[in-house]
Amino acid sequence: MEKTAATAIAHPNIAFIKYWGNRDPELRLPANGSLSMNLGGLLTRTRVWFDPTLAQDEIWLNSQPLEGAARERVVRFLDLVRGLAGRTLAAHVESENNFPAGAGLASSAAAFAALALASTAALGLRLDEAALSRLARRGSGSAARSVPAGFVEWQPGRGDADSYAFSIAPPEHWPLVDCVAIVESAHKAIGSSQGHLLAATSPLQAARVADAPRRLRIARQAIWRRDFEALAEIAEQDSMMLHAVMLTSQPPLIYWRGVSVELMHAVASWRREGIAAFYTLDAGPNVHVICLPEHAESIQRRLRDFPGVREVIVAQVGGPARLVEGQG
Amino acid sequence: MEKTAATAIAHPNIAFIKYWGNRDPELRLPANGSLSMNLGGLLTRTRVWFDPTLAQDEIWLNSQPLEGAARERVVRFLDLVRGLAGRTLAAHVESENNFPAGAGLASSAAAFAALALASTAALGLRLDEAALSRLARRGSGSAARSVPAGFVEWQPGRGDADSYAFSIAPPEHWPLVDCVAIVESAHKAIGSSQGHLLAATSPLQAARVADAPRRLRIARQAIWRRDFEALAEIAEQDSMMLHAVMLTSQPPLIYWRGVSVELMHAVASWRREGIAAFYTLDAGPNVHVICLPEHAESIQRRLRDFPGVREVIVAQVGGPARLVEGQG
Repeated sequence: MEKTAATAIAHPNIAFIKYWGNRDPELRLPANGSLSMNLGGLLTRTRVWFDPTLAQDEIWLNSQPLEGAARERVVRFLDLVRGLAGRTLAAHVESENNFPAGAGLASSAAAFAALALASTAALGLRLDEAALSRLARRGSGSAARSVPAGFVEWQPGRGDADSYAFSIAPPEHWPLVDCVAIVESAHKAIGSSQGHLLAATSPLQAARVADAPRRLRIARQAIWRRDFEALAEIAEQDSMMLHAVMLTSQPPLIYWRGVSVELMHAVASWRREGIAAFYTLDAGPNVHVICLPEHAESIQRRLRDFPGVREVIVAQVGGPARLVEGQG
Repeated sequence: MEKTAATAIAHPNIAFIKYWGNRDPELRLPANGSLSMNLGGLLTRTRVWFDPTLAQDEIWLNSQPLEGAARERVVRFLDLVRGLAGRTLAAHVESENNFPAGAGLASSAAAFAALALASTAALGLRLDEAALSRLARRGSGSAARSVPAGFVEWQPGRGDADSYAFSIAPPEHWPLVDCVAIVESAHKAIGSSQGHLLAATSPLQAARVADAPRRLRIARQAIWRRDFEALAEIAEQDSMMLHAVMLTSQPPLIYWRGVSVELMHAVASWRREGIAAFYTLDAGPNVHVICLPEHAESIQRRLRDFPGVREVIVAQVGGPARLVEGQG
């Protein structure tokens, strides 16, 4: 067969209503629906080709060969794609992030969204957006949300068939800015995949999940109406609910550092001053400060001056996962 | 009538299973049962006499006259006591704490336990411990737990009549030490009474309350068996559950400061090193580090050297509220 390469790019995303815990860890069917925006400017670029001369998959991330459990996770994902296409060829995968490694930005969402698109295209499959989102979900749950454009909701679904994400508004709907404060941390956090398994050990997870439809409704409406204050309040509460579950898991997951908490206090006080900004934190100590574009410069300056902040990364609302080679 | 004075002392307490939220705010019937130890060495000393020559209650705290809402709270409590005794005399109250004001240590528990005992004794009432605990509860919920000795459980009760605290083990049962790290904080926290009213606004409070019997059972057994690791795990989880509710209230109550979180990380790592210590935090940024006596010196040293810790206050397990004048 011809050796067909495809290259795709995808953005990471930041969730306003978070995903934590799976009903089905194997299928990555989430405990609750979630809602995010893609982070434009930050991206993963992934090139894939299937090659009959290869004995096994070769997977490179940022010019380093992947090994061990990280490699196995990608190989299992490629097995899914090969199954869809009815092929058995080994793949060569090269993936690169344009954002600093070790910055603590969740990269698996962008990685599996780009890989889902590039690998299916390389095998000549043409999946629609929902099917691609479902497939990306199998690699990393939140990757389902990096497939559609802009503001994205991942519906939990009844099963594999309807657990996928879709855009609820395009990037140009509302020009929010995410200023990510990367904080100093000597400690390596527990990975999300492992963390998801602990969600059910918290006595608070069931209540967090049961309340998710309310939070999703408020966040969705706030985005549609461009109601910053409403989005700020519900996103901060949702972030707190995620960490409430983590902090009360057994063992507890304390992803925050001191500076994370000081930043939450600071952002809350900035908003009381009239600056349209709110905080949200994923499974790590970094603080995402979401703001209106007219405040982005002031927020960046304040964050760069904040004791314990190592770096500030800025992103606008991003587009969908897309092919940059191999559409033909 | 004769002018009879009575003086009582009572200790503050630190809860391992926390009280947060009331079923009935007026009667201070708690949402859930709680469990604490009294903090010996730290105490409130309160002298009361009822005086027919007084036109109204005179209330002094740490040599300052109480005014405004704080005074009203004490007057309303004295009205309860006068009602019990069938008297209408105004009272003179002098109360002093031997621990630094503004250290952020909850003083209302010790204050209302001592006031309940001194004021009833001054009017010639002889209440048994349960009745005294019920009465103290009306001034400040956690004051119910500062009436009995040592390790104390406050049963939520079905109503006013059976919502009181009792000792589950005397002070000498287990010589735990509380090293309280007082942290730097420019911010005035929201008072507990106001905070309790917000508990029900958290989507997680019902789950915290529903799970309380489990936590109480584990903590009670751990104390009886002197099982430090078991107490450590459940007390830290319970502290996290309290703050989970606070953090997700509307508006959120972020009592922690950065140093609070850094101390939690530190104490957890010290325990992994083999030092018998755990953390618990009330409605404030200070970190109570509970340890076995053989580690108390090392813990104090580590806390004093910790960046952002202003002062360390040490307490052993304390006795009951008791009269030091006016028993006759």
